[in-house]
Amino acid sequence: MKRIVILTEANTHPWFAKTASALLRYRSDQVVALIDSTQVGRTANELLGVGGATPIVANLDQVEADELVLGVATEGHNFPAAWREIICRAIDRGIKIVNGSHFMLADDAEFAARAALNGTELYDVRKPRPEIGCAADKAKDSEVLRIHTVGTECAVGKMTVAIELDRALRDRGKNSRFIATGQTGIMVAGYGLPLDRFVADFLAGGAEWLVMHNLDREIIVIEGQGSLFHPLYSGVTLGILHGCAPDFLVLCDDASMIKCQYRAKPPLPEVIDFYERTANYIHPCRVVGIATNTRNLSEDQARVEIDRIEATTSLPATDVIRFGSAKLVDAILTTPRPLSQRSPS
Amino acid sequence: MKRIVILTEANTHPWFAKTASALLRYRSDQVVALIDSTQVGRTANELLGVGGATPIVANLDQVEADELVLGVATEGHNFPAAWREIICRAIDRGIKIVNGSHFMLADDAEFAARAALNGTELYDVRKPRPEIGCAADKAKDSEVLRIHTVGTECAVGKMTVAIELDRALRDRGKNSRFIATGQTGIMVAGYGLPLDRFVADFLAGGAEWLVMHNLDREIIVIEGQGSLFHPLYSGVTLGILHGCAPDFLVLCDDASMIKCQYRAKPPLPEVIDFYERTANYIHPCRVVGIATNTRNLSEDQARVEIDRIEATTSLPATDVIRFGSAKLVDAILTTPRPLSQRSPS
Repeated sequence: MKRIVILTEANTHPWFAKTASALLRYRSDQVVALIDSTQVGRTANELLGVGGATPIVANLDQVEADELVLGVATEGHNFPAAWREIICRAIDRGIKIVNGSHFMLADDAEFAARAALNGTELYDVRKPRPEIGCAADKAKDSEVLRIHTVGTECAVGKMTVAIELDRALRDRGKNSRFIATGQTGIMVAGYGLPLDRFVADFLAGGAEWLVMHNLDREIIVIEGQGSLFHPLYSGVTLGILHGCAPDFLVLCDDASMIKCQYRAKPPLPEVIDFYERTANYIHPCRVVGIATNTRNLSEDQARVEIDRIEATTSLPATDVIRFGSAKLVDAILTTPRPLSQRSPS
Repeated sequence: MKRIVILTEANTHPWFAKTASALLRYRSDQVVALIDSTQVGRTANELLGVGGATPIVANLDQVEADELVLGVATEGHNFPAAWREIICRAIDRGIKIVNGSHFMLADDAEFAARAALNGTELYDVRKPRPEIGCAADKAKDSEVLRIHTVGTECAVGKMTVAIELDRALRDRGKNSRFIATGQTGIMVAGYGLPLDRFVADFLAGGAEWLVMHNLDREIIVIEGQGSLFHPLYSGVTLGILHGCAPDFLVLCDDASMIKCQYRAKPPLPEVIDFYERTANYIHPCRVVGIATNTRNLSEDQARVEIDRIEATTSLPATDVIRFGSAKLVDAILTTPRPLSQRSPS
């Protein structure tokens, strides 16, 4: 059994430690500790709401580990200076480093030299894939049913919903696969492409590649990125949406989020309409349900909110973590696959 | 006045020498010669249909030059062996080299060493710009009036329209600048960023960077890429659209194009509505006019088509090459700048 330690130094917080939270949720049997010298003695569950009693330790000397995962999503090219010494010591001990940031460990002279000296593996999850080029407008014609999770905003749960839907579809006997498109999903699934790292011209090509390399499946659930409404990442969202040419969308939202980080949050019926209209320019597509994240609501509040969403959108809604994904899976399995080009609204 | 020589060795043909053709059209006063030892004595116009009497010469010894532009688009990482000696001699003479291919001159040991020795500038237009990361949602707040050319399809004239609008605005005394976002535009203008080559996550950041580095202008005209309806490149289109947060869009179309390469061409009013709706989620924005390309129509047909577009869209329309851009410039200078968030349709 692989022993994973996750570095969340000074950022063991649900918003910043997304990668850590996902690994604690989906690879909990392998995660032995988190490193955060500012939170020693506390547990993962206390700080992240997931991961149970997994301890927070001060440094690597206190645990045995095979793999050190950098568990904080850094923006852009930023690479925290405080990480360097921790990573160097892990490399010296032969511990594989798994890095999902845009900063490439293998391109760093110090990391590369130490890794070579110690025979340590540096896994840059976002490393470019130069063999994948432009799309060829092929995904739309594939038989595999393509489900795509999209969002009103970043960090509302598009990856988690995709993983949960895939699991539930497999529990129902379907030959389904979760298709990761971001570094955390790739770390969880051990498969996928870091599409937000791709050359912009090849983004749709990467999404198409993931479809065309999974034609043996009945269903694939493709993780979405960002949001069509997001001023920083909307291009990534659209490139993936058009590249994978989904049949069905599941719209992910945070029920307690009144506004998005940068703009007003449009009403859900408008969000649904805009995603459907945008998707339908490439391939017939429908939103089949809403996955709302109720982490900041009581259970009673969550039920009220879900009822309200269903009444407003006339679509099934759930919190897949709190209430399970059955409603969404039912919708996916019973809604007729859109076959003819719908007239955009 | 800068003196530019364009290298088109053995490829002085409209299909291969696209970069040369664009420079001959827009920097004709600076282009003193083309180098093609197989076509000595002929003129640019004879071979490319543009550039008038600009001579084809055998080598650099026959002209005075400040800049050598590699004017042929090479495929992939191919770099013609015949170019090496020509480039080395130019470097030794201190002539700046401008290169739009995927091959990076500055990464080549021989070119780099000679350039260092002679103090010669090597300008790799497609060189990554690692200092540019994610956008910061800043462009929307800048005072500079931002015009962006968008399209129904690829290759309908977004770069040409942007260049023509910028020229006409400067002719009217405005402190305007054309902002190139692709390699040909960059070579024409000597400025810009190859945004379609950017990491997808940094695409909007690149567009924003171009705005934030031109805050001293009254107006900037930002070249668009691809189309929101294009299955291969829509992500690039949206990343630039949201990253530069334009005030006005000029919609570019080809009047004789019945359908797009991959899909039906939506009616122009629908195209306008979709671009405006998409842009308005980030910043108040209006389409102020249509630049239609009538290259495949007679002049009479073109006039009929332009009248029809104006009647259908209630917006001014023109072919900027055939009939000039005055109508569009009038619209840009007289339409009130959108100030408040419009309610998306």
